[in-house]
Amino acid sequence: MTPYNYTLLCDYYELTMANGYFISGKGDEISYFDVFFRRVPDGGGYAIAAGLEQVIDYISNLHFTEEDLAFLRSKNQFSEDFLDYLRNFRFTGDIYAVPEGTPIFPGEPILTVRARAVEAQFIETFLLLALNHQSLIATKANRVVRAAQGRAVAEFGSRRAQGADGAILGARAAYIGGCGATACTLSDRVYDIPSTGTMAHSWVQMFDTEYEAFRTYCELYPNNATLLVDTYDVLRSGVPNAIRAFREILLPQGITKCGIRLDSGDLTYLTKKARKMLDEAGLTECKIVVSNSLDEYIIRDLIHQGAQIDSFGVGERLITAKSDPVFGGVYKLVAKEDENGTVIPKIKISENAGKITNPHFKRVFRIFDRASEEPIADMMCIWDEEPIDETKPLEIFDPDNTWKRKLVTDYYLRELLVPIFKNGECVYKSPSIKEIQAYCKYEVDHLWEEVKRFENPHKFYVDLSQKLYDTKMRLLDEKGNNLMRGKDV
Amino acid sequence: MTPYNYTLLCDYYELTMANGYFISGKGDEISYFDVFFRRVPDGGGYAIAAGLEQVIDYISNLHFTEEDLAFLRSKNQFSEDFLDYLRNFRFTGDIYAVPEGTPIFPGEPILTVRARAVEAQFIETFLLLALNHQSLIATKANRVVRAAQGRAVAEFGSRRAQGADGAILGARAAYIGGCGATACTLSDRVYDIPSTGTMAHSWVQMFDTEYEAFRTYCELYPNNATLLVDTYDVLRSGVPNAIRAFREILLPQGITKCGIRLDSGDLTYLTKKARKMLDEAGLTECKIVVSNSLDEYIIRDLIHQGAQIDSFGVGERLITAKSDPVFGGVYKLVAKEDENGTVIPKIKISENAGKITNPHFKRVFRIFDRASEEPIADMMCIWDEEPIDETKPLEIFDPDNTWKRKLVTDYYLRELLVPIFKNGECVYKSPSIKEIQAYCKYEVDHLWEEVKRFENPHKFYVDLSQKLYDTKMRLLDEKGNNLMRGKDV
Repeated sequence: MTPYNYTLLCDYYELTMANGYFISGKGDEISYFDVFFRRVPDGGGYAIAAGLEQVIDYISNLHFTEEDLAFLRSKNQFSEDFLDYLRNFRFTGDIYAVPEGTPIFPGEPILTVRARAVEAQFIETFLLLALNHQSLIATKANRVVRAAQGRAVAEFGSRRAQGADGAILGARAAYIGGCGATACTLSDRVYDIPSTGTMAHSWVQMFDTEYEAFRTYCELYPNNATLLVDTYDVLRSGVPNAIRAFREILLPQGITKCGIRLDSGDLTYLTKKARKMLDEAGLTECKIVVSNSLDEYIIRDLIHQGAQIDSFGVGERLITAKSDPVFGGVYKLVAKEDENGTVIPKIKISENAGKITNPHFKRVFRIFDRASEEPIADMMCIWDEEPIDETKPLEIFDPDNTWKRKLVTDYYLRELLVPIFKNGECVYKSPSIKEIQAYCKYEVDHLWEEVKRFENPHKFYVDLSQKLYDTKMRLLDEKGNNLMRGKDV
Repeated sequence: MTPYNYTLLCDYYELTMANGYFISGKGDEISYFDVFFRRVPDGGGYAIAAGLEQVIDYISNLHFTEEDLAFLRSKNQFSEDFLDYLRNFRFTGDIYAVPEGTPIFPGEPILTVRARAVEAQFIETFLLLALNHQSLIATKANRVVRAAQGRAVAEFGSRRAQGADGAILGARAAYIGGCGATACTLSDRVYDIPSTGTMAHSWVQMFDTEYEAFRTYCELYPNNATLLVDTYDVLRSGVPNAIRAFREILLPQGITKCGIRLDSGDLTYLTKKARKMLDEAGLTECKIVVSNSLDEYIIRDLIHQGAQIDSFGVGERLITAKSDPVFGGVYKLVAKEDENGTVIPKIKISENAGKITNPHFKRVFRIFDRASEEPIADMMCIWDEEPIDETKPLEIFDPDNTWKRKLVTDYYLRELLVPIFKNGECVYKSPSIKEIQAYCKYEVDHLWEEVKRFENPHKFYVDLSQKLYDTKMRLLDEKGNNLMRGKDV
């Protein structure tokens, strides 16, 4: 399918600022912007990066149509020169980003743009939108999947998603986070996310009796018969009718794989009872699927209570990340090049220390323990620092408490930000969605358990190299001095 | 712009069920489905209907491409006859719906479909998605706008929206709910929602000094100069530099309209101080705009505390309806026609009384007090009941407590569900987005204050006619009996 043209999916101020840079001669100044986030949703210990493929689609398809330009002209705010420039507007800069499926942590860049100011500014809104949305859902899905402890989880939330892309790309992100399937057919068609489904209450109501509805379904889909048993009464009607249909239609064909789904009621009590009824009827291979406003906490409780559940369908609370539906990625200027091509670090200060940015064009390394393959810390360095010699011990320190230092040995490094665009050309080949899911699973499996718990997770170390730390402190000192002088204005 | 083809944006089970109806000879049985919701988000007293225009676009553009059919064939679950039927699939039924911008209440149909079973089933997912999403955001926006007590509210949330449509159509829904503008340029271009914007911190950082950034902006946009004053220090740097730029660039041109924006810090304290500084500088017409994780509660508090704010930019908490991000509209079978065209009511029962559906093909009337134009109650009737004689008193009763009765006099009725599609043809002309917004405002202005308060609002009456009530009770009795018989299965 042709990607939709989202060129104008930008905050209006990106355009007024871009026009301003263009007119005031700053449009070509090479600027560096970082995308990073400050807080993991739901108080978690890590997030999962997702949405990069949509960023690539967007950048690759950036163009203004004549209708777009006419629309902008009608605003009487943009110079004709700028509109003329937009006619052939393309992204010509560089982008570095962490691959989709990577566990990411607050404060570190997950994407860096190096481009002319006018280009770098313009793409802000869509980049944030794409990364924020899918990282939010991938992160939530990963929590839900971990709560299910190996039981299958399917994404069922299209009807409650916040718009079409909320459903389609939400299903994609949920798959990256570990869901095995989605109900969203279009997500299967376009993004190769396996689609699945059972039946709705209306199927049962459409027939004169529940049994007739079940029998018909088993005849039609003998190899995929999961019957919804709660339209009337689960234990007195639904399960007995399902057992009868399975025995009369499936067993004579030698089919023992089947399922029932519960979408209401006390799921622990009902699944225990239903499991017993199914087993007594010899249907030990019949799976029990449940749905109904599930999330990681309810799934954890159900399992803890001994509910007899083989798989979960998770809808509205996953597709909207209901308990914390915002991923707060931001896009901040971190450096500029002067006329000689020297990279000049920039900082944004704030009364709130947590909102002070990490300046400069940076590289980020994940430090892994060689034996366990578990990550120990991430470290940000200035782009042109001496390479770290992995054969030698590496001292890292907590940037908030610099006396907390640690000497790391027997480690190896992986660079997190990889080249995506060079001079406007895409140089990155996205892995398949299955590869991304497998990569995510591997990486999360190797995180420390303490980082993964739902309550009070251990804070993973995101450190600065000594050189970067010193640069940040110097800039803070300078800006602080400027501020004090500001008193005299 | 060409509407995107969302035909396959359906839960996979819609297709397996549709195939099942088709094969089992039920595909052409005329079925009636209602969309309704059970609970107003955030504990509010009413919701705002939105999303109908996207339902119309979707229905009008329904079609399967050859690629779609090839994709479905690859699933090995659909009969060739069904796939062949899908090749020319169109919606040929009827749809009735409440106009966008209408206040709506739990339990009443906001959209009713009358169509062949296979068609009516198929469209479920997208209808719910479109109505749920936009009704959610319109409802939230209406709360935020009411909290602002007449001050302007702009929607600023694209970067935190859940996908592209979350941003574009979220901005549309926010406008319906009462926002005056959006930051989303594409929503302006496509849906005529006025776009607006100020500047980002990066604009300020891009210049050597804050003052230079401000001056340049005032020179470029003298008639739209709203300066972001919190990049370094609001009171010591931002406001003084803004005042200087306004005085040096705008005042000499005779321009007194301008603005500052604060995006962080203690907004009450800072806006009071800033207002004083601006007024003392003679800039009494300079507006103060604030943003930063606002919602209806924070806005109410800011105003209560005497913050000096002229308008609000509301981002992530509006565009995701953060405090309650799911609108739980459902799609339930309520009737079928038999071979003679007689409408047979259907009911879905549940152990949870609140989940029992209101059966039958229904009409919904809003009863207004003739003098005040305030709605008194909504009443659902069976489609072919005798018309209500508006010149005579009307007795209504609470369906949960039938002894609570009321005789209404001096009233008039308005039918809420209006024809949208007849025999697959769209017969409805959507009002302009400005008309929808004005209609919504008028309707909300005329709701009782008790229905509109944020905490413990009065529950607006949604009643059943005596005939509909009797039908519902009869069906419950019958199904209850069936259930008891179910014991013997």
